Amino acid sequence: MSMQQVPDSAAGAGQKFRVVIVGGGFGGLYAAKALGDARCEALELTLVDKRNFHLFQPLLYQVASGALSAGDIASPLRTILRKYKNISILMDEVLGIDPQNKTVQLRDEQLPYDALVIAAGGIHQYFGNDQWQPEAPSLKTLEDALEIRRRVFSAFEAAEREKDPIKRKAWQTFVIVGGGPTGVELAGTLSELAHVTLQDQFNRCRMEDTRIILLEAAPKILSVYSTDLIDHAVLQLEKLGVTVYTGAMVKDIRPGEVCIERHGQAEVIEAGTTLWTAGVKSSPLGMMISEKTGASLDRGGRLIVNADFSLPGHPEIFVVGDLAHYAHHSKQPEQDKTPLPGLASVAMQEGRYVGRLIAARLKNQRSEPFRYVDKGTLAIIGNNAAVGDLGAFRLKGFSAWFVWLFIHIFYLIGFENKILVLFQWLWNYFTRGRSACLITRYPEPRQ
Amino acid sequence: MSMQQVPDSAAGAGQKFRVVIVGGGFGGLYAAKALGDARCEALELTLVDKRNFHLFQPLLYQVASGALSAGDIASPLRTILRKYKNISILMDEVLGIDPQNKTVQLRDEQLPYDALVIAAGGIHQYFGNDQWQPEAPSLKTLEDALEIRRRVFSAFEAAEREKDPIKRKAWQTFVIVGGGPTGVELAGTLSELAHVTLQDQFNRCRMEDTRIILLEAAPKILSVYSTDLIDHAVLQLEKLGVTVYTGAMVKDIRPGEVCIERHGQAEVIEAGTTLWTAGVKSSPLGMMISEKTGASLDRGGRLIVNADFSLPGHPEIFVVGDLAHYAHHSKQPEQDKTPLPGLASVAMQEGRYVGRLIAARLKNQRSEPFRYVDKGTLAIIGNNAAVGDLGAFRLKGFSAWFVWLFIHIFYLIGFENKILVLFQWLWNYFTRGRSACLITRYPEPRQ
Repeated sequence: MSMQQVPDSAAGAGQKFRVVIVGGGFGGLYAAKALGDARCEALELTLVDKRNFHLFQPLLYQVASGALSAGDIASPLRTILRKYKNISILMDEVLGIDPQNKTVQLRDEQLPYDALVIAAGGIHQYFGNDQWQPEAPSLKTLEDALEIRRRVFSAFEAAEREKDPIKRKAWQTFVIVGGGPTGVELAGTLSELAHVTLQDQFNRCRMEDTRIILLEAAPKILSVYSTDLIDHAVLQLEKLGVTVYTGAMVKDIRPGEVCIERHGQAEVIEAGTTLWTAGVKSSPLGMMISEKTGASLDRGGRLIVNADFSLPGHPEIFVVGDLAHYAHHSKQPEQDKTPLPGLASVAMQEGRYVGRLIAARLKNQRSEPFRYVDKGTLAIIGNNAAVGDLGAFRLKGFSAWFVWLFIHIFYLIGFENKILVLFQWLWNYFTRGRSACLITRYPEPRQ
Repeated sequence: MSMQQVPDSAAGAGQKFRVVIVGGGFGGLYAAKALGDARCEALELTLVDKRNFHLFQPLLYQVASGALSAGDIASPLRTILRKYKNISILMDEVLGIDPQNKTVQLRDEQLPYDALVIAAGGIHQYFGNDQWQPEAPSLKTLEDALEIRRRVFSAFEAAEREKDPIKRKAWQTFVIVGGGPTGVELAGTLSELAHVTLQDQFNRCRMEDTRIILLEAAPKILSVYSTDLIDHAVLQLEKLGVTVYTGAMVKDIRPGEVCIERHGQAEVIEAGTTLWTAGVKSSPLGMMISEKTGASLDRGGRLIVNADFSLPGHPEIFVVGDLAHYAHHSKQPEQDKTPLPGLASVAMQEGRYVGRLIAARLKNQRSEPFRYVDKGTLAIIGNNAAVGDLGAFRLKGFSAWFVWLFIHIFYLIGFENKILVLFQWLWNYFTRGRSACLITRYPEPRQ
C-alpha cells in the first residue's frame, strides 16, 4: 500500500490546512499534541469533543471505589492544549460527516476539513440486553464512575440500616459481570474497600459478611494473559475475599438479583449491587462513517484502516484508537493478523503517529511506516498485588504493582494531577483509607 | 434560667444513655466530637444525616468555580468519627420527632433518645418565588456547587460555539443575586476565572467581554461589615471587573434574562447564567419541632432556644447551628439581643458546648454557661484580596486574604484534605490555573 499524499490544493500559499480531530481521548489528544508540536505554519486544527475534558480512563475504577476524586483523573482539554495557539477546541457533538464536501456536521455548524482524524472510541455494550443497564451500570464515563461509587457506598449504608439479616446480606453482596482487567480491578478494589478501609466503620453490619462475586462466561478470567499469571491473579483475588465464578453465563439481571447458569445449573444470586464490565463496542460514529465512505467494519463495529490509519479511498480521513481495526500490515502470515487491542497505550501510539504523518505531509517530508511497540498489559488486583505481561517480562505481585503505579503516574496528564494522585495513593497506602467515599446526587434515585 | 438536670432515670446502672444528633454539619459534628471525647461509659450516640459526609460549606464556592474538587471539601462522617467506638452513624432522613415518647422517626425505624440534639441547618429560599430556582440555582449543597460549575463552564463553551455576537454576549454574562459574603466570593472568583484563568483558552470568544454582575437589593453589599471595609470590597470587586448594582430589586428571572428595578427604573439583563445567593431559611424540621414541642420560631423559622440551647419545657432537646435562634442571654440591654449569626464558627461553638454540657450532666458535673467568642467574619474577594472584621481587628487586602487561607485550612476536616487543598491553592496561586474545571453530568440538561 503506497503512502498517498494529502491533496495539496488546500495547502496552497497563504491558505490554511484545516485538520479536524473528533474525540479528546488518548487517540485524539496525542494526535493533537503531535500536530501542535510539529509547528506547521499552515496548520489550523480543531478538536471536537462532547466533553470539556480528557479522561484518564485506566484510573476510572479508582473513582468508582472512592480512592480518587473525579478531578484527579480528568483534565480540561483547553488547559492541556493551551500552549498550542493554532489549536481550537469546540465542545460539540458530531452528528454526521460529509466526505464529498469534506465537512463535519456539528449541532449548530458545519466544520470544513482538509484532513479528518476520527478518535471517537467505544461505548459499553450489553449484547442485546440493554434493559440490564439500569440494574448493572458499566464503567466508561466519569458519570458512570460517580454512579457506581454512589451505589456501592449506598449499599453499605442500606445494609447498616437494614434489620432483616437476609436483606442485609443481599445489600452486602456485589456482583461484577466480566472478568477482564476492569472487572478484576473493580473486584479487587471493592474487596479491599469492604475488608480493609470500611472494616471498623459500621456498627450493625459486619464487613466480614460482604461478598464480592466476579462472573466470567469464559473458562478463565483475564484471557489475554498467560496461564501462570491468571492462576496468580485468581489466587490473589481469592485471598482478598473475591469469589471467582468462571463459565458463568448471565441469563437475567433484575432489581436485587442476578440469574446465572453455571455447569448447566441455574442459580440466582441476591445482590444489592451489580456492575457490568463485560463488553465494549465501537462508537455509533463508526457505522455512520462506514455508510458514508464505504469503509468496512469488523464484527466489533470498528473501521478497518489502511497501514497509515487512513480509510480506503480516503487518504484524508484517519481513524485511531478503539474505533480503528488495525491489522499488523507487516510480513506476518495471514492468520496472525489480529488487530491491535483496545488499550490506552495503543491509542496513544496511533494518535501520535497520525499527527506526525499529517505534519510530515504538510511539510512535504517523508514519514516512516507505523511500527507498533507492544507495551504489554498490567492489571492491578489490590495493594501490592498485580499481574503484568510486558512483552519479554512477566511480572506478578509487588513488582507488577509497583510498575503499574509508576506507569500510571507517568502517563497521567498534567503535573498537578500527578502530584495529587501520588499523594492520595501514598495516603491511602499507609492509612488504608480512601479520600473520596462520597455519595453525591441526592435524593438517591434507587432504594 | 436554671441549668436543668437531664432526668437521670435513663442513666441508671448498666443502662445506656442514648443521645441522638440530627445533622452532620458543623453543629452536629462538633457536638458528636465533644461527646465522644468526653469518654462517658454510659453513652450511646447515634448521628443521623441524609448524607454520608460532612461538608465544609465555606469553601463550596471554590468547587463551584472549578478551583477544588468535591472530595477536597467533604469528608465521610464514618471516617471522621471512626475512633469513637460509642458513636453510630445512620444515613437516614428524619421524618418526625415524638417528644412525648422520646423517639425520632426515620424512614424505616424509630430511634429512641434520652437527649436529642437538632442541628439540621438551613436551606436556600427564594422569598416566595420558587419558580426562579431552575433558572437561578443557589449554593448550599455539593450538588449545587457541581451544577453551578457545570453551568458556568458550559456557558463559556456555548459562547465559543455561538456566532451571533448578541447571543454570545449573553452567554458571557453572569448575574449573581445577593451581595452577602457568598455572592461576593462567587462574583470575585468567577471574574478571576474569566479574566485570568481562561484568558487565553478560547479562540472565538474574547474573555474581556465577560460581564459579572452582582445584584444587591439593599443600599450596600456585605451589610454586616463596617463602611470602610465595604468600600474596599466594592473597589476590589470593580478592579476585578465585577459590576456591582446596589438597590437592585429582582422582579423576575426567566430563561436567559433577569428583570430588575433600580432607582425606580425597570431593566432587563440578558444573562446566560444566573446564580442565587440571596436567601437562606431554616430547615423544615424547625417548623415540625415547633408544632410538637410548642417552641417559638423567629421570623426566619429558627427555633428560639434557652441559654443552654435546650427548648423551653424540653431540657432534653437541644438545637444548635443555623436552626437555633440564640439571643445573648447575658446582661445586655433588651435591644442588643440580636441572635447569633448563621456562621460556621458559631455552629461549631454551639455544638461543642452542647456536647460538653450533655457529657457533664451524665457525669454529674457542673457545666459553665455558654460564652460566645466572636471570631468575626472574613470574605474573600480574589487572589490577595479579602476583607475581615475580626473583633478588634479590621483587615483588608493581602493580610485579610492570608488570614482567611490560614483559618480555612486550619478548620478543614481531615489532615489529608488540608494537604490536598493547600497544594491546590498553592498551585492555583502560582499558575493562575484551576484544577477542577470539569463539566460533569452529560448530556447537558439545558441549552
